[in-house]
Amino acid sequence: MGALKFCSNCGSSDIEHKIPEGDNRLRYCCLNCGAIFYENPKIVAGCIAQWNEKILLCKRAIEPRYGAWTLPAGFMENHETMQQAAARETFEEATARASNLELFAIYNLPHISQVYVMFKADIEDGLAESGIESLETAFVEEQDIPWEDLAFPIINETLELFLQDRKRGEFVLHTGEITRKPDRSLRTVRY
Amino acid sequence: MGALKFCSNCGSSDIEHKIPEGDNRLRYCCLNCGAIFYENPKIVAGCIAQWNEKILLCKRAIEPRYGAWTLPAGFMENHETMQQAAARETFEEATARASNLELFAIYNLPHISQVYVMFKADIEDGLAESGIESLETAFVEEQDIPWEDLAFPIINETLELFLQDRKRGEFVLHTGEITRKPDRSLRTVRY
Repeated sequence: MGALKFCSNCGSSDIEHKIPEGDNRLRYCCLNCGAIFYENPKIVAGCIAQWNEKILLCKRAIEPRYGAWTLPAGFMENHETMQQAAARETFEEATARASNLELFAIYNLPHISQVYVMFKADIEDGLAESGIESLETAFVEEQDIPWEDLAFPIINETLELFLQDRKRGEFVLHTGEITRKPDRSLRTVRY
Repeated sequence: MGALKFCSNCGSSDIEHKIPEGDNRLRYCCLNCGAIFYENPKIVAGCIAQWNEKILLCKRAIEPRYGAWTLPAGFMENHETMQQAAARETFEEATARASNLELFAIYNLPHISQVYVMFKADIEDGLAESGIESLETAFVEEQDIPWEDLAFPIINETLELFLQDRKRGEFVLHTGEITRKPDRSLRTVRY
């Protein structure tokens, strides 16, 4: 949520952004009914999915990064598993059925309070077409990856790691973080 | 959040729990200003931390499961990494400094919309005392683990996997899920 203006419990506008007693972080607190509102990081789950060694990419039909290419991924929803979320996003964005999901990369993105969880997967039937959030989908060969036109640094990172592993013939779990430096540029660290 | 009664953006009580246009899930929607409120799973990060082969446990001073034993773990906060969250929780609950964190287990708990991320860690100086959320802390030998008095099934699962790996002399990443069956009992599945 952005700035909380009214209490969602009692409707009061008597809201203060303060550190509640016994806590050590700023929270939106309702001074009328005492409700405290917590915000926590979100998980983004997605797939790096192959068919005949080609990788499924989607061209974004939504902001941010409208028109840039990405791996299918999105916010995990309540009452699902990370694996279900990754497969659901692949279906929603590319109408493609992901199978054989294996955990591939887990990255912290603390500057935007997200954790990316990417799964290696297969699209066994090679079927994909644009879902409502995509302008276009494509299975691309390594040499055709639009490196300069990818939506987010985490997508570049996942693709690089995947291609490295594939070349070596062994897929392992990758962990790391992408953080914002004081000059606002982003830095990728592999743990 | 629980049921949303008032819009936190405009204060209106004209709230409907419905599927917004272009979406496929129920959300709290403000019919006055159009705001849509999303809820997403939370990450619980923690440590299975050793000192001289003994494992750090904390006796809970808070609900749920007041008085039961647990591994230090808690909700990840915005703008931190999973590793920072796990170390912070270890310090808050046991005043212990966790080092050498390595990803050990990632479990889906979809029935409560949580993902548990547990790290293997060391408490190099062997120092621990009860933080504000603990009645007691202890470094326990394998034979002294209070199996019948652990706070949550995920704690039993993490301890079992850890002891198995330690016995074998090799720690690997474990994934799985704990779900609620129709009869309300819980089932643990290792992927």
